[in-house]
Amino acid sequence: MSEIESSPDGAKGAVNRRRILWAAGLGAGLAGVGAGRVRAAEPDPNIVPVPEWSKTLGAGVNANPYGKPSPFEKDVVRREVTWLTASSESSVSFTPLYALDGPITPNGLCFVRHHGGEAVIPPDKYRLMIHGMVDKPLVFTLEDVKRMPGRVNRAYFLECAANSGMEWRGAQLNGCQFTHGMIHNVYYTGVPLRSFLEAAGVKPKGKWVLAEGADAAGMTRSIPLEKAMDDCLVAFGMNGEALRPEQGYPVRLVVPGWEGNMWVKWLRRIKVGDEPWGQREETSKYTDLLANGEARRHTFVMDAKSVVTNPSPQAPLLHKGPNVLSGIAWSGRGTIKRVDVSLDGGRNWTTARIEGPATPMAMTRFYLDFDWNGQELMVQSRAMDDTGYVQPTKAALRKIRGVNSIYHNNGIQTWLVRGNGETENVEVG
Amino acid sequence: MSEIESSPDGAKGAVNRRRILWAAGLGAGLAGVGAGRVRAAEPDPNIVPVPEWSKTLGAGVNANPYGKPSPFEKDVVRREVTWLTASSESSVSFTPLYALDGPITPNGLCFVRHHGGEAVIPPDKYRLMIHGMVDKPLVFTLEDVKRMPGRVNRAYFLECAANSGMEWRGAQLNGCQFTHGMIHNVYYTGVPLRSFLEAAGVKPKGKWVLAEGADAAGMTRSIPLEKAMDDCLVAFGMNGEALRPEQGYPVRLVVPGWEGNMWVKWLRRIKVGDEPWGQREETSKYTDLLANGEARRHTFVMDAKSVVTNPSPQAPLLHKGPNVLSGIAWSGRGTIKRVDVSLDGGRNWTTARIEGPATPMAMTRFYLDFDWNGQELMVQSRAMDDTGYVQPTKAALRKIRGVNSIYHNNGIQTWLVRGNGETENVEVG
Repeated sequence: MSEIESSPDGAKGAVNRRRILWAAGLGAGLAGVGAGRVRAAEPDPNIVPVPEWSKTLGAGVNANPYGKPSPFEKDVVRREVTWLTASSESSVSFTPLYALDGPITPNGLCFVRHHGGEAVIPPDKYRLMIHGMVDKPLVFTLEDVKRMPGRVNRAYFLECAANSGMEWRGAQLNGCQFTHGMIHNVYYTGVPLRSFLEAAGVKPKGKWVLAEGADAAGMTRSIPLEKAMDDCLVAFGMNGEALRPEQGYPVRLVVPGWEGNMWVKWLRRIKVGDEPWGQREETSKYTDLLANGEARRHTFVMDAKSVVTNPSPQAPLLHKGPNVLSGIAWSGRGTIKRVDVSLDGGRNWTTARIEGPATPMAMTRFYLDFDWNGQELMVQSRAMDDTGYVQPTKAALRKIRGVNSIYHNNGIQTWLVRGNGETENVEVG
Repeated sequence: MSEIESSPDGAKGAVNRRRILWAAGLGAGLAGVGAGRVRAAEPDPNIVPVPEWSKTLGAGVNANPYGKPSPFEKDVVRREVTWLTASSESSVSFTPLYALDGPITPNGLCFVRHHGGEAVIPPDKYRLMIHGMVDKPLVFTLEDVKRMPGRVNRAYFLECAANSGMEWRGAQLNGCQFTHGMIHNVYYTGVPLRSFLEAAGVKPKGKWVLAEGADAAGMTRSIPLEKAMDDCLVAFGMNGEALRPEQGYPVRLVVPGWEGNMWVKWLRRIKVGDEPWGQREETSKYTDLLANGEARRHTFVMDAKSVVTNPSPQAPLLHKGPNVLSGIAWSGRGTIKRVDVSLDGGRNWTTARIEGPATPMAMTRFYLDFDWNGQELMVQSRAMDDTGYVQPTKAALRKIRGVNSIYHNNGIQTWLVRGNGETENVEVG
């Protein structure tokens, strides 16, 4: 920031080159780790005259009937880790968390996990079947789904159970896009699954439902009837518009707070049964192998977790003085009540400022305004939810779970910020 | 909806063709204007076998690093009314409200109003100048703006003062995209304008600020200092990502609840003064010509308003029986507390169900589950905010304001739904 002398209309004032200023007002309002002042940027005479882009007529209002991001943001994209899986049809592309802010994930950047690639379903051909242990098997068209009473709008995080899974044995991937980018948070529009089950009439023996997708993998997961009747949604909208193709267009299942793998996309049928089906995705996958060789199964809920997205390896610190630390926290068991941040690897903690909506099973944004003098930092965040649960250290997690697991790694992440601002993924203690 | 007999695994059951069923469960839960049942759709044997799209491998996870809507949604776009203005660089493209749902407007569909086309600003060249009646004129880079303490996330509606302006003399445009589509509602990420003014130090004489954009129109509006210090934001993010180019990338002003024209895009400078500047956009434009020839000026606040988006001319009723009426309501003076819906042109009213977030100066979604027997409907909605203000009829509005106005038409909208479900824009009373 620089001081200038302004002319009568301010648009042609000459830049004051006498000195680079330390702005007074900025220190005030600084919270968190000590107050500071923004270091002045080099005064730039080019801003004082009317800039070039003010002198030429720009593109019209309908240049893009469906808008796109600025070309200057072209690197803010989902990224695949090609060595991670054998084929792109059964792989993941990660959300660029380091470049995002606020509580919502834009639809174009929501992480994608496919098991048989993207199913393309003409909406007029879509059908949803409710069958199994029901009084009356039913088939719904998409228009039927949209005519169901009780439509709701809810913001929920969707996290893949394997998010951070590659970090079990130690710091590996250098960027929160890859260590934590298997998560997004959008507003879903849909109808409670309960309404469909009540329409078909669940028989007394019915205790579980099987959700199956219409993709080439025939993705299937068993869900306890209690959860299905509680808060699951048959969703057709995300962030105001139709579901995106890679998110299950035209209809997906929403299973708030539970493993993303259970949020079946391109939802084709819901079958009611009296026990879990033991499908591939709940036996050979999405179970947690412990040190003693036993495996935990049906670990559905995603526990409280958080990560600092700025600074992070893809978003280093660029300036000394005031900086804004930003991050996200979420819990599958309830509402984020508090997030603490440490800049020294967990020795000292400061409570961050939760900013924007903090609702159950939704991503919550936090900030810490801090002053950086160029010292080395070990940045961590620790989430707490309204059940009293506190996000554990990776060491505490490994002590109980060993290092064979892939899923449910919600350990505290550490970023090392070097004196030059460069940031990397490290382990502490 | 149709009944089927399900086979053991449910996937290959034969369709029951004996009769088309009236589903029992569906009636339950119907609210609003009488309960009903979904009329059965023709049973479709093709859904029972595994569909074709389940048999072929789909596109991989990174088919679109930045995702796009489904090709089946290609008609859901912003639309320009070419006869409305002389040139596309100073025109508007409208949000397709009839095809949207939930509380948020997706970034790609937010209505666009330009006065000199879209300014293209390299983020590293961006500067924000604070000057005029201040102790210390300051210039901020984009990185400076992002390092300011006190970053916030807030959802606000942005409505053009001219929204519904073409309807002053009577029903004209056939579709809520065109009658009400100059509005959107997104989460903004930014820093209070107050912080920038405090950094520069407003002199005691300072009572107004001038906000100027870096577009070819040099869009300028005068804003009372009290509002500037209250809740205005210097915003760089929308719905989680960077501002879109047509929304002012990299920085726009957010003026909650006030005329969209004041939300200056490509924000270049804020000048502090002791009186309004009387710029074009606040004298020859954005004033309200009354019947007696006098004009109201500085009518900044957007009063409470609502519209039914479904059914509407672009979204007719397709089925008898249960239907979901959907709409949006908003108020520049506070929070939407209640929305009533009439199906008979204002004789009888039913309170709709507000669904999802209802926060100050943000768009609020409402629903009414109703049963349609094919009778002609005159659909209206009437919003009430927490100040006690009730959205007026167009007749009441014209009685006070005459028919010369362009701006601030927040009268109750009426849609005529014919027996065949087709819907059109009409006037009542």
